[in-house]
Amino acid sequence: MIDSVRLAVVGVGNNTSALVQGIAFYRNTGSLVGLHRPEIAGLGVSDIDVVAAFAMSDRKVGKDLHEAIFMPPNNFPRLDTELPPAGVTVRRGLVDSTEVERVAHALEGAEVLLYSAPSGRPDTARAYAEAALTAGVAFVNTTSDPVARHESLLARFEEARVPLLGDDLASQFGTSVLHHALLRLIEERGLTLGSSYQVNLGGTEDFRNLVENPNTKKQSKLNALGSSGKVQMAPLAYMPHLRSHKIAHLNIEAQGWAETAVSVEVRLQVHDPSGAAGVNIDLIRLAAIALRSGRGGYPAEAASLLKSPPGTAI
Amino acid sequence: MIDSVRLAVVGVGNNTSALVQGIAFYRNTGSLVGLHRPEIAGLGVSDIDVVAAFAMSDRKVGKDLHEAIFMPPNNFPRLDTELPPAGVTVRRGLVDSTEVERVAHALEGAEVLLYSAPSGRPDTARAYAEAALTAGVAFVNTTSDPVARHESLLARFEEARVPLLGDDLASQFGTSVLHHALLRLIEERGLTLGSSYQVNLGGTEDFRNLVENPNTKKQSKLNALGSSGKVQMAPLAYMPHLRSHKIAHLNIEAQGWAETAVSVEVRLQVHDPSGAAGVNIDLIRLAAIALRSGRGGYPAEAASLLKSPPGTAI
Amino acid sequence: MIDSVRLAVVGVGNNTSALVQGIAFYRNTGSLVGLHRPEIAGLGVSDIDVVAAFAMSDRKVGKDLHEAIFMPPNNFPRLDTELPPAGVTVRRGLVDSTEVERVAHALEGAEVLLYSAPSGRPDTARAYAEAALTAGVAFVNTTSDPVARHESLLARFEEARVPLLGDDLASQFGTSVLHHALLRLIEERGLTLGSSYQVNLGGTEDFRNLVENPNTKKQSKLNALGSSGKVQMAPLAYMPHLRSHKIAHLNIEAQGWAETAVSVEVRLQVHDPSGAAGVNIDLIRLAAIALRSGRGGYPAEAASLLKSPPGTAI
Amino acid sequence: MIDSVRLAVVGVGNNTSALVQGIAFYRNTGSLVGLHRPEIAGLGVSDIDVVAAFAMSDRKVGKDLHEAIFMPPNNFPRLDTELPPAGVTVRRGLVDSTEVERVAHALEGAEVLLYSAPSGRPDTARAYAEAALTAGVAFVNTTSDPVARHESLLARFEEARVPLLGDDLASQFGTSVLHHALLRLIEERGLTLGSSYQVNLGGTEDFRNLVENPNTKKQSKLNALGSSGKVQMAPLAYMPHLRSHKIAHLNIEAQGWAETAVSVEVRLQVHDPSGAAGVNIDLIRLAAIALRSGRGGYPAEAASLLKSPPGTAI
Repeated sequence: MIDSVRLAVVGVGNNTSALVQGIAFYRNTGSLVGLHRPEIAGLGVSDIDVVAAFAMSDRKVGKDLHEAIFMPPNNFPRLDTELPPAGVTVRRGLVDSTEVERVAHALEGAEVLLYSAPSGRPDTARAYAEAALTAGVAFVNTTSDPVARHESLLARFEEARVPLLGDDLASQFGTSVLHHALLRLIEERGLTLGSSYQVNLGGTEDFRNLVENPNTKKQSKLNALGSSGKVQMAPLAYMPHLRSHKIAHLNIEAQGWAETAVSVEVRLQVHDPSGAAGVNIDLIRLAAIALRSGRGGYPAEAASLLKSPPGTAI
Repeated sequence: MIDSVRLAVVGVGNNTSALVQGIAFYRNTGSLVGLHRPEIAGLGVSDIDVVAAFAMSDRKVGKDLHEAIFMPPNNFPRLDTELPPAGVTVRRGLVDSTEVERVAHALEGAEVLLYSAPSGRPDTARAYAEAALTAGVAFVNTTSDPVARHESLLARFEEARVPLLGDDLASQFGTSVLHHALLRLIEERGLTLGSSYQVNLGGTEDFRNLVENPNTKKQSKLNALGSSGKVQMAPLAYMPHLRSHKIAHLNIEAQGWAETAVSVEVRLQVHDPSGAAGVNIDLIRLAAIALRSGRGGYPAEAASLLKSPPGTAI
Repeated sequence: MIDSVRLAVVGVGNNTSALVQGIAFYRNTGSLVGLHRPEIAGLGVSDIDVVAAFAMSDRKVGKDLHEAIFMPPNNFPRLDTELPPAGVTVRRGLVDSTEVERVAHALEGAEVLLYSAPSGRPDTARAYAEAALTAGVAFVNTTSDPVARHESLLARFEEARVPLLGDDLASQFGTSVLHHALLRLIEERGLTLGSSYQVNLGGTEDFRNLVENPNTKKQSKLNALGSSGKVQMAPLAYMPHLRSHKIAHLNIEAQGWAETAVSVEVRLQVHDPSGAAGVNIDLIRLAAIALRSGRGGYPAEAASLLKSPPGTAI
Repeated sequence: MIDSVRLAVVGVGNNTSALVQGIAFYRNTGSLVGLHRPEIAGLGVSDIDVVAAFAMSDRKVGKDLHEAIFMPPNNFPRLDTELPPAGVTVRRGLVDSTEVERVAHALEGAEVLLYSAPSGRPDTARAYAEAALTAGVAFVNTTSDPVARHESLLARFEEARVPLLGDDLASQFGTSVLHHALLRLIEERGLTLGSSYQVNLGGTEDFRNLVENPNTKKQSKLNALGSSGKVQMAPLAYMPHLRSHKIAHLNIEAQGWAETAVSVEVRLQVHDPSGAAGVNIDLIRLAAIALRSGRGGYPAEAASLLKSPPGTAI
């Protein structure tokens, strides 16, 4: 029997809620539904024990993890599965790099640190990475802040034989994945793209943050969709009533034989945090396996799960 | 300068209208829009001269091809491009196999015979194939009637070094292509398919034929979408006002992480005959190239353009 | 405090399931959500006691009503509300008119008989109406079988001072209601309708019956949408996985100023049996009130709830 | 034979392009398609002669009106109808109130001044109204700037027996009209609204102006949809490739019987300037008729065509 991964998490938002509830769900039900990789090198999706958690909000710090994940502004639904206390009390996260030692100390016993805080605070992200490196814990950066793209930091993880996975999680099934697949299909079949647009509506705190700081993310999304200039993104629309749902409207206008019109209209509805958890579950296991086998730095097998791996533009 | 392909066509319906209007369109404009393969071995999409055409309807027989393609029930639109008389008078097609010789004679000088009549008359399809074989003309079967899947017939084409391409055209961009790509994407990303449906509405004569003889085609479509039993097809709906447009509504309900729901709704609108012409233009050129290089029988390079190549079930 | 209506029902299908579960739901919760008329002459939606029920299926006959409503092929969901035994055992329904007396006897104590069996059996419908008349019980015909449109029968109800409400329930919110409202809006605003279509998908037993006997209902729907010839209905599509959901795709193509195009695409999703129950609850109360005040025959206040009131074509 | 209305226009944007092209279209074709009121008191939609036009752009001033309407950033399509020179040279519009006299002079011979400039310049709007009043010409304010809601100004028009119609045009068929009708239907049928959203995408200069100054218009739209707080508007999305098309995605989530779900998804596509022209054509005729019959001030018969008539909040 393989040992469970001992996981620490930074950030107790919707994505962490989806992750820890899902781990319990799969453990309780034995279901394999919705899983990209039910097993990786013998590790199932339930072979994960959370051993530490960090958050900033007074609503969450000091609470048991399985209670903290339901505190506002979290709005991922409570799944219909038993969820006893985790036995892990949420600790206060670090505010600046003077606290690296404290966090490193708290990471003792962990194998993987999943960094799942809001994007937009690169110094914080790197301080946690330093703490993980100090503690010999593999680091997974799910945010768009550059950590694994930071060359000298990556070199130090390599040297220390500690895995560093990042940056920026590619959702299991989100707007980008679907839009990209459709544009690729149009091209493969020899149609000529005329125009395309994408409208995204969401209700999570992450989404609200994006609405208030739209530029980076929008640019990154457009890059992902090709630089033809023919794909337009509407401003993101934050609608609290959607809670953890994301809704996207996609339109593609193309031309086929003799320039006759082809139109594709799509409406996608997903739970945003589920898309994140479905990929985090693989990143965590890949990180643990790399650590256990003494491979430091960036493991190539994580590449398809990340939007901005080492070497891409910051 | 490469010689143009000398093409004969059986069937002067919408698909032929789209094909010959498109050839003129690309010749007149130099456009490369909407083309899967602008050139195949030096042959552009306009390097095709129609030298013979066969039809059954009194409205079409005896008329110049460029006039006949606009006769009802054809309803593919008149493209905005100059279309002088073709100089080819539509001949009466064959009724039974006693007329093979007559047709073979009429095919003299042709290199490729594109069989683009309505599906559902396998004897007729094979009679034209015999005529093509007699005349040493490559045969392209775009219908679902078994011709290339007919082993002994295929063997005779091989022996005679005459190409035989078939059966059943896969549209350049139709409901099946799109639905299949979406179901594959769902699977690739690790989601679990819950249910899916497809509704097709169309206004062409071909579509009306399918509505009246739904079983074969529906089964063939379902086969194409996988045998999971989770994909349902609504009865085809013939709506004359749609003319040569086809509209499809697709729905996919899937489950992701922790069995949370993912919904995809799609509306597709295409010109059905354009989807056929965009593939016929490649089949014709592949057939001519094989003939010119002395390769008989089924050319492997046509495989991706056909739904039921030799060896698949009849 | 007003006396509750003593209700008998014929048919223990999805519509009856939605009705009796809903009555319990509103009683348990006090909710007023989704109600067209919370009160009619002092009667709330929970002021109804079922006192008799008739069905044909061996799966239902002999069971308590609150158990029978969950027997297949019923597939309306089990609502999240307490539902103790009804104390009413489902009786076997009548097969022919020789049993009118038996049913009339069983109706003693009831005020209203809701006829909610499958459409398409007019003789059965009228036999139950005879039983109701004999017992002095108001009769509500929710099917498209002609009962209230049967002049001599209506006359006898009038004479006996027994209310007769029918025929054919107009859903609280279904495809027809929505399509009609949109077409009316197009007209009111001065747009000119070009074309319109309607596609209906459903998964109930009622829906399956319609698919197998499409003509009458389709015609009746088209009549409801106006006889312009511009509104097309796709064949109904029975898809069991939809269970009690109905999905409709509507399209309207119109022309505005200078004949420029206006397009409206709609997707509607509803629970079919809820649409029926939401209207039955009003018909039942109207019937009881008319009976209690000694008004026989057809009460004008029911007109907007019925598709084929007395006087319309059979 | 009734005399044609002698019309002056301020603003030579898309709305004016749609108006003057449409007048020519209906005159040339005799079509009655897409018209709310083919005739008003004997005035057909073609019984209008433009006698003066004002614009600010160097691209338009000095050109014949029928040439100026196609200058960028105008992007309403060129209709397929003959459009000889109008014989009206576009004049430079006024910059401030010192030019009222010049404009009043230029209005001599006109009966109606249609103010169709961009919203957001109330001083300019009122200066033109002053000029119209001076010249005895009826004034129609299609912008959201307060003119008819300006009490003392309205009083002076009344006194002078000059009609003043405004403010803010209600489109013949736009997002608000459709959304409002659907919400009203939900309510009429007794469903309970849960949530609703509206996404608008457009490509006109007017739309770009709204995107850059979103607050007022968004508020005004929300007011129009009721103040329940359940209707959300996504930020407007300016997408130049849409040209004069507007696309809206509407969603309505409601609850019916026993709180079961009802979902309505709508996609609307219209030509924005057609929606304006289809109402302007009525306002112009109502203004002329009022003027000819000596009725000054605000004519009640215009009420349904305006969003903010006299008395509503500024």
